Amino acid sequence: MSLAPAPVPRLVVVGSVGLDTIRTPWERRSNVLGGSASYACAAASFFARAGMVGVVGADFPAPARALFRRRGIDLAGLQTVKGRTFRWSGVYERNMDVRRTLRTDLNVFADFSPELPEAYRRAPFLFLANIAPALQLHVLDQMRAPRFVVADTMDLWIRTAAADLGRVIGRVDLLTVNESEARHLTGAHSLLAAARELLRRGPSHVLVKKGENGSLLLSRDRIFLLPAFPLEAVRDPTGAGDTFAGGFMGRLARDGRTDERALRRAMLYGSVVASFGVEAFGLDCLRRLTPARIEERAARFRRMLPS
Amino acid sequence: MSLAPAPVPRLVVVGSVGLDTIRTPWERRSNVLGGSASYACAAASFFARAGMVGVVGADFPAPARALFRRRGIDLAGLQTVKGRTFRWSGVYERNMDVRRTLRTDLNVFADFSPELPEAYRRAPFLFLANIAPALQLHVLDQMRAPRFVVADTMDLWIRTAAADLGRVIGRVDLLTVNESEARHLTGAHSLLAAARELLRRGPSHVLVKKGENGSLLLSRDRIFLLPAFPLEAVRDPTGAGDTFAGGFMGRLARDGRTDERALRRAMLYGSVVASFGVEAFGLDCLRRLTPARIEERAARFRRMLPS
Repeated sequence: MSLAPAPVPRLVVVGSVGLDTIRTPWERRSNVLGGSASYACAAASFFARAGMVGVVGADFPAPARALFRRRGIDLAGLQTVKGRTFRWSGVYERNMDVRRTLRTDLNVFADFSPELPEAYRRAPFLFLANIAPALQLHVLDQMRAPRFVVADTMDLWIRTAAADLGRVIGRVDLLTVNESEARHLTGAHSLLAAARELLRRGPSHVLVKKGENGSLLLSRDRIFLLPAFPLEAVRDPTGAGDTFAGGFMGRLARDGRTDERALRRAMLYGSVVASFGVEAFGLDCLRRLTPARIEERAARFRRMLPS
Repeated sequence: MSLAPAPVPRLVVVGSVGLDTIRTPWERRSNVLGGSASYACAAASFFARAGMVGVVGADFPAPARALFRRRGIDLAGLQTVKGRTFRWSGVYERNMDVRRTLRTDLNVFADFSPELPEAYRRAPFLFLANIAPALQLHVLDQMRAPRFVVADTMDLWIRTAAADLGRVIGRVDLLTVNESEARHLTGAHSLLAAARELLRRGPSHVLVKKGENGSLLLSRDRIFLLPAFPLEAVRDPTGAGDTFAGGFMGRLARDGRTDERALRRAMLYGSVVASFGVEAFGLDCLRRLTPARIEERAARFRRMLPS
């Protein structure tokens, strides 16, 4: 055992780590590694060292943990406790346009209380991936003085934990939402009107994820519009939003800057990593992905954009 | 009567001219000026002189004709015949996401055979707006040697006039489609796969219109992605695609170029004009629109895009 202090990760990610059973129109796979923290950390790992905060059960497969380690993810914040790992199952219908959750088993997540390793508390970048807002707040409370905090959420928390979610939104620098969440949170139909209303609730930036239709970053006096990298075929959209956000945060953490230019560049890289992510099942893309392939696609993507 | 030859318009547009009855969640208006050629010519008129090819009945209102004249649209190709003008009525449901056609009365359109004035036949740019493919072919047959031909279509013709539509697609430089038309025409679910398949059928470019999600231009070896100008509120989406295409064609006709750079710029201007179009009911936007307002919004739009 080393007495040297543990290194401070550039980025801390809290979220779910679980085993997913996914059915698409073409295939079905059981117990594949998933969860918002898994996707986000894996995506971020191509840019910066990420510390994962989450919980798994005694049944969590060793190969999954090995994958995290190979990606250089710091697992000091990943608790392993008695019981079964979080499980989710869902099905994609109508050519992937609609996702329906079949089952959610919280298992060890039911009693999870995230405790940050000492080194994590001094990390400059924090991503509160999709998880109960009370847990997001608990993590925020443990951080010393993070430079840039981003939170994601989902429809479930808008319905069941609105007050806590409101507190999260009031304490972050950037909120990521998808289109339905933006509308659901605000009641506004226009995406722009919804994003502007969210901006009034605290964050200095709102990032709307529109899947294959790209993303939109709204700041007090600026709008940035980014299309998505176009794909011939999507094999599994699970985790696309988390992969996008993870790539975005990883790139910001690597650059160490959060000005408009850095945010725009980070969105481009988030979009590129997410495009790889959905081309394979679950986290499979990561087994083959390399920084060189990311750069090559980023360059191709740039040539497709206005200039 | 002057014996001087009529001037050759830069752009010829053939399509429908009609009176629409439109219901949105907030309002209902009867017999407002509409039709694909009306929207496209009006949008194009901010950039280049457009010659309209279409037919109206004896009941066509004088103020509508006066609006066309004020926009400098050449009406030599607009036939006026006995009978009633084409009428369409539709309703926007679910916050504008779904449009349902209530009624289509072809009226004078039933026996329409477009005959191009002599001057039109030498126009360099031709836009075959949405109209029966047989009529689009008849117009194409009358043109001497147009430099750049663009065609639009709709689901109806894919179902009822597939053979003629296939001939049109084989003879144009650029085909514009929306997402559902692209899928319907090809059977491909992925937009990119659908657009690539359409490219194989003849045109050198396929322009996919995605409404508020922007547009995509596919050429043999290039892809261009353009988001849409974001709006706080959409009042009436009727004619948005025709306005986009009309602005696109008008800008190309003004520039007199069709290289990749010119096509990309024309898409940006088409998008800007369409954004004004949907902010007001029917063609109302045009009563207030000016080139200065178009340039101002184009500049604002550019600042929202990657660079």
